[in-house]
Amino acid sequence: MSKAVTEVYFDFLCPYAWRGVELAGVLRQDGEAFALRHFSLVQGNHKENEKDVQWWLTDQPLGEGDRFQQQSLPAFLAAHAVREQGEEATWRFTLALFRAHHEHKKPLDEAAIGEAAQQAGLDLGAFTAAREAEAGLRASLRADLAEAHEIGVFGTPTFVRPDGSAAYFRLENLTRDAQEAREWWKLYGAVLDSPAGIATIKRAKRRPALKR
Amino acid sequence: MSKAVTEVYFDFLCPYAWRGVELAGVLRQDGEAFALRHFSLVQGNHKENEKDVQWWLTDQPLGEGDRFQQQSLPAFLAAHAVREQGEEATWRFTLALFRAHHEHKKPLDEAAIGEAAQQAGLDLGAFTAAREAEAGLRASLRADLAEAHEIGVFGTPTFVRPDGSAAYFRLENLTRDAQEAREWWKLYGAVLDSPAGIATIKRAKRRPALKR
Repeated sequence: MSKAVTEVYFDFLCPYAWRGVELAGVLRQDGEAFALRHFSLVQGNHKENEKDVQWWLTDQPLGEGDRFQQQSLPAFLAAHAVREQGEEATWRFTLALFRAHHEHKKPLDEAAIGEAAQQAGLDLGAFTAAREAEAGLRASLRADLAEAHEIGVFGTPTFVRPDGSAAYFRLENLTRDAQEAREWWKLYGAVLDSPAGIATIKRAKRRPALKR
Repeated sequence: MSKAVTEVYFDFLCPYAWRGVELAGVLRQDGEAFALRHFSLVQGNHKENEKDVQWWLTDQPLGEGDRFQQQSLPAFLAAHAVREQGEEATWRFTLALFRAHHEHKKPLDEAAIGEAAQQAGLDLGAFTAAREAEAGLRASLRADLAEAHEIGVFGTPTFVRPDGSAAYFRLENLTRDAQEAREWWKLYGAVLDSPAGIATIKRAKRRPALKR
C-alpha cells in the first residue's frame, strides 16, 4: 500500500514557501509524507494569465524578464535536474537553496545553486549533465505549473492533502521543532476539516489613519 | 469593569457576513460580547479607493449607483437608525434583514427593511423618525467605514478581537447550534493565537483543465 502524500507547492522566491517547506521537512522526519511541487509566482501573477495560462514561465529564455523571472526559472530547472538523484537529495537541495536565499539573504543565482548542490551532497557531475538536458527539465516544470493552475494554487506554500483539499498556508514564523511543527500542521488540518466549511481566515493589516 | 467586546464588521450584501453575524448571535447567548459594525464592500472594492478612500458610500445620494450600492446604503442607514432603540433591537433587526435577503432570498429593499423592523419588534414610529435624520445616520455609518479602513478590513465578516487582532473569517456553512458555534469560534481563535503567526489560510479553488 502506498502512503498518502501531501503535495507542497512552492516558489523559491517566497519566504512563506520557505517556512512551509521547512515545516514539511520537520514533519517528514516524523513520518508524514510530502512531495515537493513547483508553482511560479511570476507566472501566477502575470497580467496575461488572469483567466487562463497564456504566458508560461517554461516558454521564456533564461536571462530574460524581470529580476524575479530571472531568479526563479534557473532555480526551478535546477531542482528538476536533482530529481533523478532521488527524493532525499531533492529535499536537501531544496532546503539548502531556500536557506541560502531567505535565511542567509544570498541572491538566488548560479552561485547559490552551486553551493546548495554541494551542501546537498549531490553527484555534481551528474547534476551538471542533467541541467544541460534543459528541454526535459522544462517539460517536467511545466507539468508542475499546469497541475498547480488546475488545483487553483494562487500563492505559496499551498499544501494539497491526499483527499484533494488544498489551501494556501501563510506563516510569519519558522519552526524546526518537531512538537511545534505537529501542532501547526494539526491546526491547518483542523481548519480544513472543520464542518464550518472554512474557506478563508485572513488577517487584516492596519492602514494609516484617514483624514476624516 | 466593562466586558471585552469583539467587533464584527459586515455588509448586508454578503452571505458570509450573514453566517458570521449568526455565529456571533449564537455566541452572545453564551456570554460572548460582540458589537455590530459596518464595512461596505462597494466602497472597499471601489476602483478609486485602491490606496486611500477617495470614494465614500456616505457621500452618495440614495437611489444612485449600481444595484449593490442602491441596496446597501439604505440598509446600512436603517441599521444606524435602529441603534437608538438599543443593542438588542439592533441585533434583532440586523439578523432579520440578513435572513430576509440571504435565507429567504428577498431583495434587499425598502419592503425587506420594513418587514425586518416589524419582526424585530421596533418602535416603528421612532424608527421612521430616526431614518429621516439622515445626516446623523450618514455620519455614524462613516465612522464605522473609516474605522474599518484603518483596521484593514477588506471583506466580511471580519472579527476584531479585544486585543486588536483581526481577520476575515469566511464560512461556507451556517450554524445556530451553541456547541458547534463555540467550536468554530475556538478554532478561529486558535489560528489567530498560534505561535506560528498564521497570516492566511485560504482554500484553493479548482479551475478547468488546461489545454497543455
